[in-house]
Amino acid sequence: MLKIADKSFTSRLFTGTGKFATPQLMSQSIQASGSQLVTMAMKRVDAQDQQDDILAPLIKAGVNLLPNTSGARNAEEAIFAAQLAREALGTNWLKLEIHPDPKYLMPDPIETLAAAEKLVEQGFVVLPYVHADPVLCKRLEDVGCAAVMPLGAPIGTNKGLRSRDFLEIIIEQANVPVVVDAGIGAPSDAALAMELGADAVLVNTAMAVAKDPVAMAKAFAQAVEAGRSAYLAGLGAELRHAEASSPLTAFLDTL
Amino acid sequence: MLKIADKSFTSRLFTGTGKFATPQLMSQSIQASGSQLVTMAMKRVDAQDQQDDILAPLIKAGVNLLPNTSGARNAEEAIFAAQLAREALGTNWLKLEIHPDPKYLMPDPIETLAAAEKLVEQGFVVLPYVHADPVLCKRLEDVGCAAVMPLGAPIGTNKGLRSRDFLEIIIEQANVPVVVDAGIGAPSDAALAMELGADAVLVNTAMAVAKDPVAMAKAFAQAVEAGRSAYLAGLGAELRHAEASSPLTAFLDTL
Amino acid sequence: MLKIADKSFTSRLFTGTGKFATPQLMSQSIQASGSQLVTMAMKRVDAQDQQDDILAPLIKAGVNLLPNTSGARNAEEAIFAAQLAREALGTNWLKLEIHPDPKYLMPDPIETLAAAEKLVEQGFVVLPYVHADPVLCKRLEDVGCAAVMPLGAPIGTNKGLRSRDFLEIIIEQANVPVVVDAGIGAPSDAALAMELGADAVLVNTAMAVAKDPVAMAKAFAQAVEAGRSAYLAGLGAELRHAEASSPLTAFLDTL
Amino acid sequence: MLKIADKSFTSRLFTGTGKFATPQLMSQSIQASGSQLVTMAMKRVDAQDQQDDILAPLIKAGVNLLPNTSGARNAEEAIFAAQLAREALGTNWLKLEIHPDPKYLMPDPIETLAAAEKLVEQGFVVLPYVHADPVLCKRLEDVGCAAVMPLGAPIGTNKGLRSRDFLEIIIEQANVPVVVDAGIGAPSDAALAMELGADAVLVNTAMAVAKDPVAMAKAFAQAVEAGRSAYLAGLGAELRHAEASSPLTAFLDTL
Repeated sequence: MLKIADKSFTSRLFTGTGKFATPQLMSQSIQASGSQLVTMAMKRVDAQDQQDDILAPLIKAGVNLLPNTSGARNAEEAIFAAQLAREALGTNWLKLEIHPDPKYLMPDPIETLAAAEKLVEQGFVVLPYVHADPVLCKRLEDVGCAAVMPLGAPIGTNKGLRSRDFLEIIIEQANVPVVVDAGIGAPSDAALAMELGADAVLVNTAMAVAKDPVAMAKAFAQAVEAGRSAYLAGLGAELRHAEASSPLTAFLDTL
Repeated sequence: MLKIADKSFTSRLFTGTGKFATPQLMSQSIQASGSQLVTMAMKRVDAQDQQDDILAPLIKAGVNLLPNTSGARNAEEAIFAAQLAREALGTNWLKLEIHPDPKYLMPDPIETLAAAEKLVEQGFVVLPYVHADPVLCKRLEDVGCAAVMPLGAPIGTNKGLRSRDFLEIIIEQANVPVVVDAGIGAPSDAALAMELGADAVLVNTAMAVAKDPVAMAKAFAQAVEAGRSAYLAGLGAELRHAEASSPLTAFLDTL
Repeated sequence: MLKIADKSFTSRLFTGTGKFATPQLMSQSIQASGSQLVTMAMKRVDAQDQQDDILAPLIKAGVNLLPNTSGARNAEEAIFAAQLAREALGTNWLKLEIHPDPKYLMPDPIETLAAAEKLVEQGFVVLPYVHADPVLCKRLEDVGCAAVMPLGAPIGTNKGLRSRDFLEIIIEQANVPVVVDAGIGAPSDAALAMELGADAVLVNTAMAVAKDPVAMAKAFAQAVEAGRSAYLAGLGAELRHAEASSPLTAFLDTL
Repeated sequence: MLKIADKSFTSRLFTGTGKFATPQLMSQSIQASGSQLVTMAMKRVDAQDQQDDILAPLIKAGVNLLPNTSGARNAEEAIFAAQLAREALGTNWLKLEIHPDPKYLMPDPIETLAAAEKLVEQGFVVLPYVHADPVLCKRLEDVGCAAVMPLGAPIGTNKGLRSRDFLEIIIEQANVPVVVDAGIGAPSDAALAMELGADAVLVNTAMAVAKDPVAMAKAFAQAVEAGRSAYLAGLGAELRHAEASSPLTAFLDTL
């Protein structure tokens, strides 16, 4: 079972609330995914109307909310958003996102570390979204982050694990859970992340933009389980030469 | 449901009997995989002893046997092996394999087509194992093969879908089921093959050489289902730019 | 120096005459490439007018013509086109291309081998264009082909060496020169093919569709030389861990 | 011509002095590479003996020295090493390297930015070695770095451009030269970096560990020129479908 800070998770698939065509579809997809941790932007939290009705069944079903600071361009804005989120949602869990660049939304390593340090001091359970930077991930761990969330590819691109070589180093070195976030575009990507030894993945866009988000959510749930099981079951090595899985029928020679 | 010739399959994961540490482990793994079609070399069939006791529970559980001609170096040897197999096992299903090269075991396109044509005439249900060659796959379909089994990578290498670009063309053009065979080294590879639109995959080495083959077999079963579901649910496109799944918190500007 | 049949080549970059915006640009680009072997379709050969004036300077500059059978859908058509080409151009060299599929233009292994065997008997120097199929390449070598021309990716796609794993096997096993043909989209692709040990590459589309084909032709010439030199100079292995090329400044500790 | 700070370079291939079997081989290789900027660790600079005799011909030949801070684990150590280097070598150019992790030698984004800012204030021409982090590169540019040096793969691994997707973003956004550093294992990798629009590459290990470093240095020089020329000549797009470069011989139908 995955443990982050004081919470335990039987599902290693985290999700988000963005980009779904309707709130109903969002709610149904998240429930189908079996996810127990769902990230959401403060803007959504802010709207005290219809949305709450959507979140209610999720919360009732035991889903934990993970407010994020998406849109924050520096540490100051992120800390302010975090405080608002804590007040509005009654949770000290936080996905820390700081991305000054509006085109690729790549996270800022400097501001993220600075904000993480302060938020940990303020009692937040901080899960920072970062580039797949092994040194940065160690530093975030050192200042007390509860997990690290390195990206697979620029957010929303569905490109898969383009940072694979660096994710492998992060996973090897981490003493906190590693959650691969952003870029995962298909269940096979999620399975691969888990096979590499990631502790969890966060998937949002790939579910939300699918033709059938609910069915896609289920597919991701299965793929994450498959990848985790394969990691535990011990994958074989890649070989340079062929090896027949069927023994050569030597009997043909003897006839 | 997948239909090949006169049979229907609820599981899209095919397996094989090679390379497992013990016959018991082989039998348990195959049952855990949920596979309904299992390939085996004639050499195994030939040994009328212990092995039969192993196969018995599989057959009882509804698993179909798919004898293969592994070790055949030309059409003549393959046809001879096929006839032996039909007699010994009482099935006209056949995985046609002809590989003259003992190092990489790459299949021979010429002999395979020649043998396929004759075996179809002789009433076999022929599933030929071939390189990921789109034109060859069409020709095998044209002579009456029940499915085509292009490889992802040289057999036994666990390298995954190295022939991906060509598999995509094969899948686009095929009017018979496409079963991706050989090279699949991890559940993520199997999921990817299914996401590309393959009708099934055949996995053997990656299960057999896992530290825990039974657990790995279950993982492959989940991954194949996940990949198939994702294919049906309609995967989103890869994008060049980032797109936030959390809407930017414009509220920060307005405070 | 590369030797194919009775001819020697100092340049390992082969080219073609297709897709250039003007005959002048084609001629200039080929000359800039330094190529000594240029393939052309029979249709071009057929037109006995303007084109001859374009080819004349190339021939005068020592470029050898390699007529191809592009457009042939089976062995019969290819053999007929080959005979026409020999008569029209006075050369028994032939690039054998047979592709029944008009969308991806993937070559037909069966018809290609059948045609190659007959054309060799008729005294042609046959260079067959084929999928990256190691067994087929050996068979073409066995029937007397002077070289083999496996593809990197579907022709005209500029996708690079998508068949890399199979090209490596072909190169390892071949006793005739291996010319990587089709798919090479950039000089880096050409360099990679040469680094893998290919004897030459054939590039056409990537030059012809460049904004500046003449400059691109020169770039390809350099890249082919670079890749060949690197192959001969012995590339280092890929390593799993980092190794600093600058020794760690232990002196910092001693201060 | 490439311009960094006050210097202009006709060669876009930068090199280093590490890992060569002998100082003579190092000197010969660098001269063969045509490189005009050569990085070296302070430890080497420190040894006031034999090495100077090796460097002398390079300097005489117009090669510029780029001392690096390899081995520094934080900003303080790096700044100290930089000051020593300036004094010892009489140059204010500096390759800033800070890597606390001895296994993968991945650079530290936080310390690197902090050191860069101070070193720029102290009059250094700073070229920081960093992970392929687009936001960090912008920040380094903003504090006055003369260029940025993102990595292709962990240093010394010869793995090529594993960070490709992120290098593309860096190149698109940069207002200072981008020098791809670390991981480049073959001339094809160097050509690819230049085709993507990098301004230069730094290669050391791949030359030093080649069987013939001098020949490999020449190969890299050619590849860098090829890649740069291709970038300027305008590469064609990748296509999904095949397009014949030889027009289909419609004449076959009319006969």
